[in-house]
Amino acid sequence: MNDLLGIADLDRATLERLVESSTRFRRSRDYGKGALAGGRIGLFFEKPSTRTRVSSEVAAVELGAYPVVLGQTEVGLGSRESVADVARVLDRYLDLIAMRVFDHRNLAEMAEYAQAPIVNLLSDLEHPCQAVADLLTISEHKPVADSVVTYVGDGNNVCHSLMMGVAKLGGEMRVICPPGYEPNQDLLAQVVGQVTVFSDPMAVDGSDVIYTDVWASMGQEAEARQRQEAFGDYQVDADMLGRARTDAIFLHCLPAHRGEEVTDEVVDHPRSRVFDQAENRLHSMKAILLDLLG
Amino acid sequence: MNDLLGIADLDRATLERLVESSTRFRRSRDYGKGALAGGRIGLFFEKPSTRTRVSSEVAAVELGAYPVVLGQTEVGLGSRESVADVARVLDRYLDLIAMRVFDHRNLAEMAEYAQAPIVNLLSDLEHPCQAVADLLTISEHKPVADSVVTYVGDGNNVCHSLMMGVAKLGGEMRVICPPGYEPNQDLLAQVVGQVTVFSDPMAVDGSDVIYTDVWASMGQEAEARQRQEAFGDYQVDADMLGRARTDAIFLHCLPAHRGEEVTDEVVDHPRSRVFDQAENRLHSMKAILLDLLG
Amino acid sequence: MNDLLGIADLDRATLERLVESSTRFRRSRDYGKGALAGGRIGLFFEKPSTRTRVSSEVAAVELGAYPVVLGQTEVGLGSRESVADVARVLDRYLDLIAMRVFDHRNLAEMAEYAQAPIVNLLSDLEHPCQAVADLLTISEHKPVADSVVTYVGDGNNVCHSLMMGVAKLGGEMRVICPPGYEPNQDLLAQVVGQVTVFSDPMAVDGSDVIYTDVWASMGQEAEARQRQEAFGDYQVDADMLGRARTDAIFLHCLPAHRGEEVTDEVVDHPRSRVFDQAENRLHSMKAILLDLLG
Repeated sequence: MNDLLGIADLDRATLERLVESSTRFRRSRDYGKGALAGGRIGLFFEKPSTRTRVSSEVAAVELGAYPVVLGQTEVGLGSRESVADVARVLDRYLDLIAMRVFDHRNLAEMAEYAQAPIVNLLSDLEHPCQAVADLLTISEHKPVADSVVTYVGDGNNVCHSLMMGVAKLGGEMRVICPPGYEPNQDLLAQVVGQVTVFSDPMAVDGSDVIYTDVWASMGQEAEARQRQEAFGDYQVDADMLGRARTDAIFLHCLPAHRGEEVTDEVVDHPRSRVFDQAENRLHSMKAILLDLLG
Repeated sequence: MNDLLGIADLDRATLERLVESSTRFRRSRDYGKGALAGGRIGLFFEKPSTRTRVSSEVAAVELGAYPVVLGQTEVGLGSRESVADVARVLDRYLDLIAMRVFDHRNLAEMAEYAQAPIVNLLSDLEHPCQAVADLLTISEHKPVADSVVTYVGDGNNVCHSLMMGVAKLGGEMRVICPPGYEPNQDLLAQVVGQVTVFSDPMAVDGSDVIYTDVWASMGQEAEARQRQEAFGDYQVDADMLGRARTDAIFLHCLPAHRGEEVTDEVVDHPRSRVFDQAENRLHSMKAILLDLLG
Repeated sequence: MNDLLGIADLDRATLERLVESSTRFRRSRDYGKGALAGGRIGLFFEKPSTRTRVSSEVAAVELGAYPVVLGQTEVGLGSRESVADVARVLDRYLDLIAMRVFDHRNLAEMAEYAQAPIVNLLSDLEHPCQAVADLLTISEHKPVADSVVTYVGDGNNVCHSLMMGVAKLGGEMRVICPPGYEPNQDLLAQVVGQVTVFSDPMAVDGSDVIYTDVWASMGQEAEARQRQEAFGDYQVDADMLGRARTDAIFLHCLPAHRGEEVTDEVVDHPRSRVFDQAENRLHSMKAILLDLLG
């Protein structure tokens, strides 16, 4: 693995290796300690972030590397300076560059011009670091290959990476979206494995995992009201969780808009794993950094 | 001590222990070096900060811990995500969470939901880390129990923590405020020890310490003019300092608005200890971190 | 060297020592590793920065020091707090304070009130850390004393530090500017060595180095159109590079506005050294930090 731009780019063996490595970090906080001593890791954010920011920074530090945290003000990606020039400059100072960007194409351009590995910390298309954490969390419940994982809501970046990851590892993936909010057609066409898109919320029947995300992501606040209407029937509530398997778990990449895409009852349910899932961001980020630099 | 939300929550023994420990850090920069190796300390700022930010970050580093600095943009406390969820997530990545917040209730809610200790880096109610540094600075001049400490000005968060701290350690605390700007009545009612509130600036007579703070804190700029009028007679100038004991010292938590709450002559007076007091923020923060995590 | 406010303040021996030391860092990433262990270095930015920010932060870390990065929001230099007070406070926490400021006079005031060394990371007058990297880059091509270095464009801070540095090291410096955009007269009067100002772009003939910078710096966007017209004949293109020596190199402190002050063809030319020059920011910053604190 030279870069981690998306789950779409990974073969099954690499993805399995990342999940397995994440498990080792999950088991022991000391695992890999200092393995990247002297490493210099850029963490660049065009959009704000809590989980990704803190988990990435702590992951780098616990592996012995030093994180340099940058915002859009500092970098001006594509505005103050061309993407290619940013890549060629940062490449001289940093051993790996992880980036949260609006436009996925900027990641691809960074990867083209930088020798340092580029890691996608969220783009409009994919959220692969989240997906590795998600697959780890699912695998703690049941082998992914034996699981029915159902994503309910907006066919967004989180959904894209999750569906490709579950399918790649041999699980059955269902995506339940209101019409017009389905996953990206190009990505659906690239799926290796089994992904089925539904519009009927009843399709959660028999799921091992129910997963949702906010209806309006950062930058989509303007269309929030319209989305509230479109997604009205897709709230994950106790009834919906009840239609899944009796031991089904609930996942959410957070932050949750409680009372919108999910009820308090479900977020705080005994079978909700959302905070373990958040913790797994740390473990999977360590696995990703070590795989690229170790 | 599980958290440090306010001086109000501390018993006398704990407060004495913190001041004594601060003294040890004051005497030797190497004291406690590496004592918190591997620790991960979140520093979260809803409001900007120089002294608190730099002293906390350096304190963490010199104890061997790693500081993760976050702003409101990253966290969106209570807006992007509920306070309880922020607490439960950060808890998975960090060993201690220190926060500067507008609303003290958010600190209490963080403490309720996070297992990691929560430290108040300034709220609308209290500024306990400042108070520990203040008590250290006073004790370098004269034992707090033998001191008359007079705060002149706005009965704000800094005043609250100072008055409770001085009283708790057995000193005589005087607060001189214009009518309408007295300390919070609930906090006054909780005071253990001796605190007297005056409106007459002449009440500085016989003080060992005169302390003031800006008249309009961050967020109160709108009412700055009104406050300028109300506080006109409460400026700490050479005359006022002259009415205190002949060896009385001057303190200010800084930043000072020179020419408003205090004259240049007093800030730069040989008996001004404001820069030692600022330095003591570093030593007392180390004491606080070590007490909570050591 | 107690501070590094500008190239104007350095004698030739000190400047030579900095360039030579930079060369040693350039040759080996391990050189000086841990030499500043325990050091606390403030990096303060009133204006945004990519290269300076990342190179300074990494330089500090690789020397074993800890960088504390601050923005204008945190410090409020001269607004929230007087410059002298900021100096006296930060002095208690930090061993060196490096600053990017709008107004050079604030640097001088910081240096007056802080015992810690002050380093200029860019002011309206000078950009000395850039100049040390520039001199290193030139010296990798040809000894500076034997070089004709020609700066084409706006007689700004980058130009000031470069012209004084080249002249001080015995090189021939030419500055080619449109009328009205010449370097600061006071600085020109202070030059030790040979600097000639031209308005005719043909004066590049025989240069060993052609150097340019953006026509409108940060804060000058308002007059950008007027500047575009004034600088129209001063674009560094293949023709202009062709009039220099056949082995002449091209330098630019970046970010480049490709198609304005320089064409793509020149930035990406085999004899462009702009990315080596950017890398040299790291090596020269290490030399500067070590010289001031080692």
